[in-house]
Amino acid sequence: MKVRSEGGIRDIKTVWMEDDVVKLIDQRLLPDELKFFEARNIEEVAFAIEDMVVRGAPAIGATAAYGMGLASVKGMNMEKAAARLRKTRPTANDLFYAIDSMLGAWKDGRDVRRAAEEYANEIARKCELIGRHGDELIEDGSRILTHCNAGALATVDFGTALAPIRVAHNAGKSLLVFVDETRPRLQGAKLTAWELAQEGIPHTIIADNAAGFFLNRGEIDLVVVGADRITSRGDVANKIGTYEKAVLAKENSVPFYVAAPTSTVDFSIDEGKDIPIEERDQNEVLEVGGVRVANAFSTARNPAFDVTPLRYISAFITEKGILKPHELHRIRDP
Amino acid sequence: MKVRSEGGIRDIKTVWMEDDVVKLIDQRLLPDELKFFEARNIEEVAFAIEDMVVRGAPAIGATAAYGMGLASVKGMNMEKAAARLRKTRPTANDLFYAIDSMLGAWKDGRDVRRAAEEYANEIARKCELIGRHGDELIEDGSRILTHCNAGALATVDFGTALAPIRVAHNAGKSLLVFVDETRPRLQGAKLTAWELAQEGIPHTIIADNAAGFFLNRGEIDLVVVGADRITSRGDVANKIGTYEKAVLAKENSVPFYVAAPTSTVDFSIDEGKDIPIEERDQNEVLEVGGVRVANAFSTARNPAFDVTPLRYISAFITEKGILKPHELHRIRDP
Repeated sequence: MKVRSEGGIRDIKTVWMEDDVVKLIDQRLLPDELKFFEARNIEEVAFAIEDMVVRGAPAIGATAAYGMGLASVKGMNMEKAAARLRKTRPTANDLFYAIDSMLGAWKDGRDVRRAAEEYANEIARKCELIGRHGDELIEDGSRILTHCNAGALATVDFGTALAPIRVAHNAGKSLLVFVDETRPRLQGAKLTAWELAQEGIPHTIIADNAAGFFLNRGEIDLVVVGADRITSRGDVANKIGTYEKAVLAKENSVPFYVAAPTSTVDFSIDEGKDIPIEERDQNEVLEVGGVRVANAFSTARNPAFDVTPLRYISAFITEKGILKPHELHRIRDP
Repeated sequence: MKVRSEGGIRDIKTVWMEDDVVKLIDQRLLPDELKFFEARNIEEVAFAIEDMVVRGAPAIGATAAYGMGLASVKGMNMEKAAARLRKTRPTANDLFYAIDSMLGAWKDGRDVRRAAEEYANEIARKCELIGRHGDELIEDGSRILTHCNAGALATVDFGTALAPIRVAHNAGKSLLVFVDETRPRLQGAKLTAWELAQEGIPHTIIADNAAGFFLNRGEIDLVVVGADRITSRGDVANKIGTYEKAVLAKENSVPFYVAAPTSTVDFSIDEGKDIPIEERDQNEVLEVGGVRVANAFSTARNPAFDVTPLRYISAFITEKGILKPHELHRIRDP
């Protein structure tokens, strides 16, 4: 992704490996500072995922793959490394997909570090394809709503939901992106807006509460979001609030697209209700920027994801093309 | 409303008049500090409304009524005082209703200060009746979602949406209130949670994004919100995000109630789209607690209210009883 700095425009990735170190953009510090986090052992890789130095399903997957590469370079017990990484976060499918892929490479006697490199490059390549396919859905002048951050920061590069927006913008289409701020962690206001600002893509941040207002007023032409896990029948787990936007889009006859690499599909689960939903620390809701907003006696609930049933989804934008809901099985049976 | 302090439990109102001063709970400081704002002239009353020292349609109405009382005591030009107060905020109907009522009292040669006192007492009395009527809709064990603050702080006492909850709780019913935090100004997390904590009513704060999650999981039995303006056919302007919750409630077959005194109905407007919607400073979205969360180059849109069409509303809870949507005309033609 392009990042403007005093030395000009740099092109960086969200996560990569250099010598025996996994390097990541420290997303906890954005948009205030662009700094890098260095993970030198499996525990530091696990911390990076748990503490959300890195977040976004494909980026978590790439980080876990590099973690497995690091474990193999360090001569660690690979099953133990896999077990540690599996425990980091429960919802995103890419995490488990990446760990299993690297375990497979190890069992096949392949170089796991190189396999991790290929895995990460493959994500970037898939996102580029998602961008090209999704661009077809975006007309000149489109006003697009997105939720959370499904950008380059959530992947390795390009993004999922933001990839078609990048391609459409670069093709000269005039766009306006409505960015849900995405409480409680504000990934929209902090990360998506930052990415769009870096590339000069016109956008406006809104409170999550305002998405329905703009959808109802006909000021949004389409919605594009990412996904953390897609079931075999097409229910989608994604950042909390995605379900709300999907219902509101359908109610207002606005198309709702889910952009994700096919590694996000978990064929072992059919119904969305069977996806494990992470519930995070209540302080993410009770505090904003480390400052408590609620009185001392109140508590909070903080589910991090929700499930959008298939019936609200107009189509999936994947590296294999745009798939209508009834075409999702093609991923498994090409 | 009950407020716990070191000296025990106090019973206070949101706004009242003492000597020649309009006194208000300074809601900008809650829940951290309970302090009072004193308005000694019409400009200070207007400031209190504009800067949201006081907010909530009925409380704004009472404050404006007291402002008119203050103007009459000070021998001010009453038409000018009315004109100044009318400019403070555009959406809440009670503001205009209260000003017109006080102008009427003045033209009739009545004591405007006493009329203001009666107006404020009347709101509290209506809210108490709303509580008693609404209680009938709440079963023992109910889990109730509310949005923004439609509590005592938004009225003079008791609240609109919170009045039935108070009555049900005092009647010994077991309740759990889900409190939408209500970005951008967090009136749910800051004010509603504080009111409920003062009275020991069980509650949990959630990000606005999470309401759909809990509605879809069957963890919410009913939704109750307030209203800033209701059109003659029953469309409801209320805090931004209300429309989202109403659509989600209907989609999940959960009843959605609007609690409001009948002074909230504006018979001069039929359709919700004709209600003027205030758009507030973008910094309410870009900053949280005075600290900027977005990068320096991004902008925001900040509509403060939205409109919920009548078809999403199960019933209105008014001081005159529970009115089904088709019975709303009874307010005008009793």
